[in-house]
Amino acid sequence: MKAFMDENFLLSTDTARTLFFDHAKDMPIFDYHCHLNPHEIMENKSFRNVTELMLGGDHYKWRAMLSNGADESLMYGDKGGAPDFDKFKAYAAMLKYAIGNPLYHWTHLELRRVFGINEILNEDSARRIYDQANEMLQDDAFRCRALIEKFNVKVICTTDDPADSLTDHAALKEDRGFGVKVLPSFRPDKCMNLNAAGYTDYIKALSAAADVDISSFEGLMTALEKRLDVFHALGARVSDHGLNTVPFARADASVLDATLQKALKGEKVSQDEEDAFRTEALIRLGGLYRERGWVMQYHMNVLRNTNSRRFATLGPDMGFDSVGGCDVALPLSRLLDAIESGGGVPKTILYSLNPADNYVVGTMIGDFQGDVPGKVQMGSGWWFQDQRDGMEQQLRTLAALGLLGRFVGMLTDSRSFISYPRHEYFRRILCNVIGRWVENGEYPCDMDALGEIVRGISFDNARNYFGIEL
Amino acid sequence: MKAFMDENFLLSTDTARTLFFDHAKDMPIFDYHCHLNPHEIMENKSFRNVTELMLGGDHYKWRAMLSNGADESLMYGDKGGAPDFDKFKAYAAMLKYAIGNPLYHWTHLELRRVFGINEILNEDSARRIYDQANEMLQDDAFRCRALIEKFNVKVICTTDDPADSLTDHAALKEDRGFGVKVLPSFRPDKCMNLNAAGYTDYIKALSAAADVDISSFEGLMTALEKRLDVFHALGARVSDHGLNTVPFARADASVLDATLQKALKGEKVSQDEEDAFRTEALIRLGGLYRERGWVMQYHMNVLRNTNSRRFATLGPDMGFDSVGGCDVALPLSRLLDAIESGGGVPKTILYSLNPADNYVVGTMIGDFQGDVPGKVQMGSGWWFQDQRDGMEQQLRTLAALGLLGRFVGMLTDSRSFISYPRHEYFRRILCNVIGRWVENGEYPCDMDALGEIVRGISFDNARNYFGIEL
Amino acid sequence: MKAFMDENFLLSTDTARTLFFDHAKDMPIFDYHCHLNPHEIMENKSFRNVTELMLGGDHYKWRAMLSNGADESLMYGDKGGAPDFDKFKAYAAMLKYAIGNPLYHWTHLELRRVFGINEILNEDSARRIYDQANEMLQDDAFRCRALIEKFNVKVICTTDDPADSLTDHAALKEDRGFGVKVLPSFRPDKCMNLNAAGYTDYIKALSAAADVDISSFEGLMTALEKRLDVFHALGARVSDHGLNTVPFARADASVLDATLQKALKGEKVSQDEEDAFRTEALIRLGGLYRERGWVMQYHMNVLRNTNSRRFATLGPDMGFDSVGGCDVALPLSRLLDAIESGGGVPKTILYSLNPADNYVVGTMIGDFQGDVPGKVQMGSGWWFQDQRDGMEQQLRTLAALGLLGRFVGMLTDSRSFISYPRHEYFRRILCNVIGRWVENGEYPCDMDALGEIVRGISFDNARNYFGIEL
Repeated sequence: MKAFMDENFLLSTDTARTLFFDHAKDMPIFDYHCHLNPHEIMENKSFRNVTELMLGGDHYKWRAMLSNGADESLMYGDKGGAPDFDKFKAYAAMLKYAIGNPLYHWTHLELRRVFGINEILNEDSARRIYDQANEMLQDDAFRCRALIEKFNVKVICTTDDPADSLTDHAALKEDRGFGVKVLPSFRPDKCMNLNAAGYTDYIKALSAAADVDISSFEGLMTALEKRLDVFHALGARVSDHGLNTVPFARADASVLDATLQKALKGEKVSQDEEDAFRTEALIRLGGLYRERGWVMQYHMNVLRNTNSRRFATLGPDMGFDSVGGCDVALPLSRLLDAIESGGGVPKTILYSLNPADNYVVGTMIGDFQGDVPGKVQMGSGWWFQDQRDGMEQQLRTLAALGLLGRFVGMLTDSRSFISYPRHEYFRRILCNVIGRWVENGEYPCDMDALGEIVRGISFDNARNYFGIEL
Repeated sequence: MKAFMDENFLLSTDTARTLFFDHAKDMPIFDYHCHLNPHEIMENKSFRNVTELMLGGDHYKWRAMLSNGADESLMYGDKGGAPDFDKFKAYAAMLKYAIGNPLYHWTHLELRRVFGINEILNEDSARRIYDQANEMLQDDAFRCRALIEKFNVKVICTTDDPADSLTDHAALKEDRGFGVKVLPSFRPDKCMNLNAAGYTDYIKALSAAADVDISSFEGLMTALEKRLDVFHALGARVSDHGLNTVPFARADASVLDATLQKALKGEKVSQDEEDAFRTEALIRLGGLYRERGWVMQYHMNVLRNTNSRRFATLGPDMGFDSVGGCDVALPLSRLLDAIESGGGVPKTILYSLNPADNYVVGTMIGDFQGDVPGKVQMGSGWWFQDQRDGMEQQLRTLAALGLLGRFVGMLTDSRSFISYPRHEYFRRILCNVIGRWVENGEYPCDMDALGEIVRGISFDNARNYFGIEL
Repeated sequence: MKAFMDENFLLSTDTARTLFFDHAKDMPIFDYHCHLNPHEIMENKSFRNVTELMLGGDHYKWRAMLSNGADESLMYGDKGGAPDFDKFKAYAAMLKYAIGNPLYHWTHLELRRVFGINEILNEDSARRIYDQANEMLQDDAFRCRALIEKFNVKVICTTDDPADSLTDHAALKEDRGFGVKVLPSFRPDKCMNLNAAGYTDYIKALSAAADVDISSFEGLMTALEKRLDVFHALGARVSDHGLNTVPFARADASVLDATLQKALKGEKVSQDEEDAFRTEALIRLGGLYRERGWVMQYHMNVLRNTNSRRFATLGPDMGFDSVGGCDVALPLSRLLDAIESGGGVPKTILYSLNPADNYVVGTMIGDFQGDVPGKVQMGSGWWFQDQRDGMEQQLRTLAALGLLGRFVGMLTDSRSFISYPRHEYFRRILCNVIGRWVENGEYPCDMDALGEIVRGISFDNARNYFGIEL
């Protein structure tokens, strides 16, 4: 029996161990998609205690606590009114039941790699661990910039709205004291959510940010393009779209303009009208990304805010989202085809939240390749798939259907400054999958080739792919 | 090589063996969902031979025989006219080809645990085994109550119609001679199948059973609530819904009343009308379950009676059903949200017949948690998933997405009195999955925690969850 | 560590090795579905070099090269203008990144089994291997008939249009010099693609081939039946339908006739009209197959030619197809039910390109069994599933849901004369899956039964099932 989480954690063969220790472990991190707050990086945030740091913004953890029957006061960051230690203890009490859950591994990786605490977190140890970690947190070595540097992160791409002023990003660009590249990403979801509350206000803000009148579809496109260029000037090379469902419907300018007018008047836009509006916007944006050499990301098949009662009191991104079951294959193929027909798809990464779509995504990327290695990518196991089985399945599916050796690898997608051990987790799983193949005689034990592949997926492929200078 | 089905069957590590023998094997059985006939339990049915006992009501087995090209006369219980031994022999002849099929394991577990017969069943051994088992069946120790007690069953929840008189259940409640709790479950599917043949007669029967006039939607709800209270008084705490497809459409009282009137006149109700009727009924019933502290079960994504030719001659539940492929995610999330908005979902167990829905179900349960540990559950591998790979996949998915330690575990869902070894089968698989994690260093070898988890999933969690006093 | 692809490749247990070497390895091949060109077999084609032989018609390989960023001139057979060696070298350069991809294994199996070349193919070895293989290709032992015979192929069923003259097949039937049975298969897709360019011309060709006027649905059916009988007379016993989506809609003769007339006039036929036309045609054809004792194949859930830009320059079947995500369960069950109601389904093999449909297919086959063992089959891992994980998943799913022992096994589905090692690949995976079960004590180590099962799935079941005399 292997000890719990020893140095060979998840590495079951000699080849896996060699690959991990010689080729993966010390590679830098290229975090090309996350939800870190650039303002907190700018101000070099410190943390009042381990509850704020570990549980503060992590809806995965709240969700598990709610599943354990915990009281609402123990969750939801500062919205939960209970004392911070009580929250930490309730989290520790839940953890026992989370056998087989990534939280069990993430939590102990965080304690070990961030604090050097090797104890198992449970109700008994919660007090000791809480006090020990809190004492360390007083030190500047535990402010957010130091945490980022500790994990050898080279690039962080945050997630930003086109209407965002990007003042923190502009300041970070000028800040010579921080060696990590922090770049905005362009996520223009809000301009397509025509029936959302506050749509008109949002469009006003975007119009002001871009200094463009937005009373037509073309006006909107012009505004987005201007903002895209501002993002570009700050070093951004990545966009992101949350396509809970994938639209495909075509419409001409007059219909799109009428739809926009309706939305701006606060009238209800039909599903067909919204689908056409989103489709045409996505096609246009795809072209703009391609022209600039950007990478486009689609995040698909999500049911968001399914619990209206919780949404009313807590708002979005609090742990009340789940996996969608709609067909992404047909509309996605049509959408990418339309972008391709307009001049070629940009570099693209496709993620579905539903692993039942793995073969859809893993084969569709093959339909639009060309120009550069791995131009269209199957995204790393996303959100609920970001765990041992989910990541292994993504790696095996991609390998079976495409070129694993060209994969741009892992991102954090996180709101937390201590989620970087998830890269270690991913790399261990990667090396274990590859090591097993090699030891089974399914790939030659050619350490030059294997090392190149592992270093590539850990870092080098992303460095080459995203066109971001380091 | 391990011997076939030895004592360490399916237990591949020391930890798995320790967990199974010390914490799982001797736990009682809480069979919270099955299709046993309460009348047969009441009368303490005996069995004329092993064909009646093993093959009598088991459409899994007939289906396999039909796949083997067997003649119809050899199947379908008494509807098949062939001599009983010929049926048994044809079953034995099929078994060789069922490598990797749960029938192979179930059958040999049944022979071993019920009769102590360790021989392999095949065409050669069929006669010997048939005679040997039949001789034992003459003994009272093989009547149905003794069989149930032999497997240490504490609770049996049968599946009952709201219009059912429950006389057998009432009699069983008074019967001090039988120590096993046999309770009805409330399955009101028929009142929502508006286009089914015999709908009007069914509503008449329900109206009579409840002593309530059912000429409006409210009348139907009143009748159901009255029957629910009768079930409750007999100790029932579980309901069940067969939602082959999941409806979601809203309608007001006048529309629902008109729909009901149409159905009662034998007119064809449209899909939209039926969806709205079912939706509103399910929302109302969800509230009634919550108010009473009941557990609600949804069984989803089934194609039933797909073969009209067989249905015409054999009727339902004869082995002509298969896995559906519709989207359950969107309508299910809306339906649960509507119940939640009306005061909170009841304790709920969700099952989909299609494992492609595993991530949908495994994440959706997380959207509606609260109040008690594991309030909303992902159901154990159901029907076609009730086998080694299907159960292991359900366990791993639940673990990755939620709290495996809070899982209420296995049920039989069976029409047979000797399907209890399936609990042993499940527990072996459970201990093996957990044991492998522990031996791989993925969870600490903390036998207190592990023992609690295994005993919990085997029995204790169900005992705490269902609110049925033992 | 096992050496790369040694003699025990993919065989991880003693039982697996015994099964493979004693019962699988030397069985003949029954290739009941492929896309070989009968004219090339008739003329006993020779190959100018290894690029033509290995890369000439294989869109799997082009697709991987495009994913690696290779220039278009290096792909697409003679359409790519680069020198042949450059193509081979670019393929070799890609291969390193194809870790975990079946191409890595197929390529090295092809080099070993066809040429006896054991070297690893990479950029360094490409020249050596190219020259060595090309020299061998000059020998008549490497013309296509010799290649087919080298792999002990007994039957080849090509894929043919009803309008095809079958002159090559007729000639092959008379050719006493070639011991392999080469038979046509009946694939009448084109007559149902009512909106396809050239539909009218196609119908004219079919009309001429059958000598039947096709101006009504009945006329079309008559023509198809006449052609079917011509195929039958040449020994054909297998049909095939590419149902990218599965239709189900009923219509009467007048509607079908009007639809056909519309199509013949080049007018656009609606989706509903086409669905009804296809449905009725499939039902009728199902009956014709049944009457003749044929096997019907459905290949489902494909998105074909998704990239219009590539399609415009390259045409179909060039590597721009991917996995569909539509619901096949409901329409397929209705369609099979309609055929069953009309007199019984014929022997049928169902394939979905999406493994998320595995449980749908694996259970639906059980709804329509009878008459002969394994009458309705779950097809072997198809196209993108034709790799280690996909095949293992197909085998395990079929085993869990039906009778693996009655499976008719592997086909090549290939356009290449050297894809027969894929049968070896399949058999190794099969023996490994079964061997693991036996060694785990999940099936008795009864070598008589196991040998029968393995030989059955390798060859004997197909020989019994297809009704083709050898």
